[in-house]
Amino acid sequence: MIVSMLPWSADFAGRMHEHVISSELLRGNPLGDPYERPLLVYTPPGYDDSPDRAYPVVYVIQGYTGQVAMWRNRTAFRQPFPETADAMFARGDAPPAIVVYADAWTAYGGSQFVDSPGTGRYHSYLCDEVVPYVDARYRTIPDAAHRAIAGKSSGGFGAMITPMLRPDLFGALATHAGDALYEYTYIPEFPHAVRHLRKYDGDIARWWDQFRSRVSFTQPEDMPLVALLGVAACFSADPDGTPVLPFDPVTGVLRPDVWQRWLDWDPVRMVPAHADALRGLRGIWIDAGTRDDFNLDVGAEAFRSALLEAGVSADSIYFELFDATHAGIDYRYPLSLAWLCQRMAD
Amino acid sequence: MIVSMLPWSADFAGRMHEHVISSELLRGNPLGDPYERPLLVYTPPGYDDSPDRAYPVVYVIQGYTGQVAMWRNRTAFRQPFPETADAMFARGDAPPAIVVYADAWTAYGGSQFVDSPGTGRYHSYLCDEVVPYVDARYRTIPDAAHRAIAGKSSGGFGAMITPMLRPDLFGALATHAGDALYEYTYIPEFPHAVRHLRKYDGDIARWWDQFRSRVSFTQPEDMPLVALLGVAACFSADPDGTPVLPFDPVTGVLRPDVWQRWLDWDPVRMVPAHADALRGLRGIWIDAGTRDDFNLDVGAEAFRSALLEAGVSADSIYFELFDATHAGIDYRYPLSLAWLCQRMAD
Amino acid sequence: MIVSMLPWSADFAGRMHEHVISSELLRGNPLGDPYERPLLVYTPPGYDDSPDRAYPVVYVIQGYTGQVAMWRNRTAFRQPFPETADAMFARGDAPPAIVVYADAWTAYGGSQFVDSPGTGRYHSYLCDEVVPYVDARYRTIPDAAHRAIAGKSSGGFGAMITPMLRPDLFGALATHAGDALYEYTYIPEFPHAVRHLRKYDGDIARWWDQFRSRVSFTQPEDMPLVALLGVAACFSADPDGTPVLPFDPVTGVLRPDVWQRWLDWDPVRMVPAHADALRGLRGIWIDAGTRDDFNLDVGAEAFRSALLEAGVSADSIYFELFDATHAGIDYRYPLSLAWLCQRMAD
Amino acid sequence: MIVSMLPWSADFAGRMHEHVISSELLRGNPLGDPYERPLLVYTPPGYDDSPDRAYPVVYVIQGYTGQVAMWRNRTAFRQPFPETADAMFARGDAPPAIVVYADAWTAYGGSQFVDSPGTGRYHSYLCDEVVPYVDARYRTIPDAAHRAIAGKSSGGFGAMITPMLRPDLFGALATHAGDALYEYTYIPEFPHAVRHLRKYDGDIARWWDQFRSRVSFTQPEDMPLVALLGVAACFSADPDGTPVLPFDPVTGVLRPDVWQRWLDWDPVRMVPAHADALRGLRGIWIDAGTRDDFNLDVGAEAFRSALLEAGVSADSIYFELFDATHAGIDYRYPLSLAWLCQRMAD
Repeated sequence: MIVSMLPWSADFAGRMHEHVISSELLRGNPLGDPYERPLLVYTPPGYDDSPDRAYPVVYVIQGYTGQVAMWRNRTAFRQPFPETADAMFARGDAPPAIVVYADAWTAYGGSQFVDSPGTGRYHSYLCDEVVPYVDARYRTIPDAAHRAIAGKSSGGFGAMITPMLRPDLFGALATHAGDALYEYTYIPEFPHAVRHLRKYDGDIARWWDQFRSRVSFTQPEDMPLVALLGVAACFSADPDGTPVLPFDPVTGVLRPDVWQRWLDWDPVRMVPAHADALRGLRGIWIDAGTRDDFNLDVGAEAFRSALLEAGVSADSIYFELFDATHAGIDYRYPLSLAWLCQRMAD
Repeated sequence: MIVSMLPWSADFAGRMHEHVISSELLRGNPLGDPYERPLLVYTPPGYDDSPDRAYPVVYVIQGYTGQVAMWRNRTAFRQPFPETADAMFARGDAPPAIVVYADAWTAYGGSQFVDSPGTGRYHSYLCDEVVPYVDARYRTIPDAAHRAIAGKSSGGFGAMITPMLRPDLFGALATHAGDALYEYTYIPEFPHAVRHLRKYDGDIARWWDQFRSRVSFTQPEDMPLVALLGVAACFSADPDGTPVLPFDPVTGVLRPDVWQRWLDWDPVRMVPAHADALRGLRGIWIDAGTRDDFNLDVGAEAFRSALLEAGVSADSIYFELFDATHAGIDYRYPLSLAWLCQRMAD
Repeated sequence: MIVSMLPWSADFAGRMHEHVISSELLRGNPLGDPYERPLLVYTPPGYDDSPDRAYPVVYVIQGYTGQVAMWRNRTAFRQPFPETADAMFARGDAPPAIVVYADAWTAYGGSQFVDSPGTGRYHSYLCDEVVPYVDARYRTIPDAAHRAIAGKSSGGFGAMITPMLRPDLFGALATHAGDALYEYTYIPEFPHAVRHLRKYDGDIARWWDQFRSRVSFTQPEDMPLVALLGVAACFSADPDGTPVLPFDPVTGVLRPDVWQRWLDWDPVRMVPAHADALRGLRGIWIDAGTRDDFNLDVGAEAFRSALLEAGVSADSIYFELFDATHAGIDYRYPLSLAWLCQRMAD
Repeated sequence: MIVSMLPWSADFAGRMHEHVISSELLRGNPLGDPYERPLLVYTPPGYDDSPDRAYPVVYVIQGYTGQVAMWRNRTAFRQPFPETADAMFARGDAPPAIVVYADAWTAYGGSQFVDSPGTGRYHSYLCDEVVPYVDARYRTIPDAAHRAIAGKSSGGFGAMITPMLRPDLFGALATHAGDALYEYTYIPEFPHAVRHLRKYDGDIARWWDQFRSRVSFTQPEDMPLVALLGVAACFSADPDGTPVLPFDPVTGVLRPDVWQRWLDWDPVRMVPAHADALRGLRGIWIDAGTRDDFNLDVGAEAFRSALLEAGVSADSIYFELFDATHAGIDYRYPLSLAWLCQRMAD
């Protein structure tokens, strides 16, 4: 931006570095999405002046329909998270860390940060390509104890599951209104989808074709169906990549085997099998708004409860429900970022 | 009413008879509700003049929080169902029938027309006391082929299950927005209940005590919690009558065994085990509004589909989705009543 | 009702008397509505045993679309107002009074209790026919100091204006969410009406014809348009009775002269011209819910403020805003009834 | 952005030029807002290759809370307007034009593009500084016949009034859901503001102080009150700059003189006094969504009707209502841009 002045722009105390990572794992992905991805790496104040110092890293991932360029979006009377994160470090609210903004967008609007024949290998790309890329180019402390992951909504989901699957890589996490307890996250949406699909004879592919051929989001079904289709692509795609809905689109009746594939990705249900990994984490931040549109406050409670039952120490958990919906909670991100940095510094 | 004039009142072409039935089965019910119940029996035009003629009977039951005196409630620009039913017969839109308005109210607001240690033996009362009471006092054709049952919402649920359980008694049914496909009827309500229960430390009994000691329905939680508690009393009460919620009230996590007790009462899931009974019915009317607040239009689709899969003939089913919510659909009742009378006359 | 038992019915400690009043003033009314009207007169406990005692009278009027038979409507977990009023007297919460339930329904759903060429002479009927009718048949104290009027919504409006116009007849009033401050009561509805009228080419008469020829309230426009048409009939009918809308139905632009006719009936704006009458009242109860759908809590504040500015003593006003919408506030009526009885007894 | 690839970024066929304009008129503005403002000037494809060609100019202004950097915001499945505008020119859908994105943000979130002691001289800044700045640096056709202005919401308002006030400068306009017919734009918001202000004792300054000292938009009153305060600063500030509300904040009663100051800025009401200017325009595009949250579809109808009444030729007006709310209608902007370019080319 041309003027470094609020509300149009702000100077950083640290520095934001722009990269393009060329992903071998995303090459040839089923949706034909770009395998070259933008990557933003933020180095905190002091980084350039302390050439011998190594830093913890926090990976930040986004919610559904998010892509990394949106971190620059400006809204009235607020600043983008990269700026509030920078201000947090500039104030000295937490020990400095590198912050990495990774991109996992797909043509369906998201990847849920999993490997899927429906979308591509986004989990592996994040763990096996982005992390080494950053470690190779920045003075990181390259171990799990100094690597955290954070996100909101689908990004919160990614932040919950990635350390479960890769405790060798990630030692702390923060989830803001992360997808959890899928009967309340997803099931209330299914009957609405059935209704929306009536005008497409129950065929979501027909809606998708139409959606791509016209102005997006001019129909009330557009947002719920894009999310449904996208999550089906992530969780329950056929081997050939075709997304399979977890319910009959005409009667709404659940398809138990398909729905089970979704449940297998429910963080609450994943906890017992990954109890060791979770007990080893240095910090788990969980929060959500008490009026979350997808009931993710209830999911947050359930996730915490599952953690405690799995033997995770209450001391390693920060938990808070606050008055909010699912929207407008970006002001929470610097809070968890500071907390993660403190946990990793201890 | 003193003047037989719209909008204050209307004369009947037939006659409405008021009874009090003293139920042995409800005596000593766990909630201490009255065992003497009002019962309205409507005889159609011509009944008094045809002393040798016997008539089919349609039993009409109500939705949750309904009790039989509410059939007299008047609303603007509409007439109560007993009057529109009478007008339907007076117009000759269908062969005449006796219409019975039965009461199954409880202190929780309803009984779901089942036998439960939480509320009482309302299914048996309806089948083994009300039906014989009517047959003994009116010129009915006392067989299943000439006995139907109809209702809306919880009453639609009762209308679906009663003939499944007692095909010896009921030979036709009409369900308007009847409870079905419980993942969409009930699950979307559970996370809201979790939120509401936060101010009662997750203890619905605390809310219930408070609810009964103050003006009802002044708190937003009142309506959803009374329905939740009442349905738990019907479907998942302990042997001592205590209602057990199908989820942990703090975390929202489903209690699979309790939830299964609810699912065992899902009409869609009940169909296969009662396929014979359903194949024997002379008519099944299914309708719902396409914007039903409890997704019962989707439940209606699923129920129809289950029937067809169970071998019920498409000829015996009337199915319609129409533009409406869950409210204000009483104008549909005379339509199904006429249809049931025609089916039973063939 | 056949059993005097909750929830189906309740016995009265006092007595409810049913009358039909034949109104000369309503005879030949422009809508062809009945000129014989039901009238309910309640005498309190002790009335029959104290043949020499005379009683104050509270007239109770209803909101839009209300008619007197609806006072018998039963809803779950509550009792109808005539029963809660009776219970209030039976408990001795207030000195006994006669309570009169008057009917002012019209084919449009209401009369606003004014004289209008569009609907009829309902104000005069109430004041010059109903009041004398009651005074002639019951042991009333037939003066303004012992005659009050109360109502909700349009009934609250009627309760505000009638004593302004006839301080010789009424000496106290209670308004629950009464129509007031018309820019907030009505103007927010006008643009919605413009939208609804698009499918009728801006002609509300076309909608009205259609409305009367089909099931009512199956279209979203039905309720707002019936209220709009009805109020126009009350406030801004042409001499021949045709309701004139206060705005151009296509552009929405206010018609200043017609809108002024509405404003002339705004209780807030009527106060200065009737300051003497209002200063003479023995009690003015004003309440409303803080989330009233028609902003009538703001209207209540404005009405109170206008009263104080007009010199009405703060001592004679009871004012309360409470947490509620426009619906479900019938539990407030016994509170104002008791207060009015106490004020008239002093 | 580092990669010129959707969805992260896109290459322009034309060119976007970034400027900072130092405004003498905004220097010392009452809110202490920056007087140096970003300014984006877009030159269409071919501009650089046709050094002798001069171009019409379309000025684009933003809705409330908008500032010029937000034109870069990216949302899922759509492109920012500067990109869709560029694509429109690249496709040859309209004769090429220069497009200027001007900034009129203030600490209250907007300026309504008027001169006010409450905010600053934004109208004059736009007309007397931005326009000459552009004309001096780009090959414009520097006359009203080749200068248009367009915007949405408050920007639509600015687009309506600026040519009325300065027909010497602007010869065409496009308003998307522009503020008009203020009884429907603003009055429905006032009672809500009264409610919100109850917790600030009716003192909007107390809310404003609190708002600025905490995270913005965490309270439900934040958005409506910031808009109310800001518009009052624009339309009804005291000479010392203090915004005066158009109603009593406790009773809601309109302050007729203050409200009249708002009405004096209602485009519908401004038409007659500026009929000459409007009749001279080459094109007037008016559109809005039929479910606009601020009833601006009704305002659009009223504005069109006022234009026709003032003698504006129907040929010079494009009018359309389409299915949408107030949000998500940015896809309309390229349509009006193309139309304006065609009108100016004729």
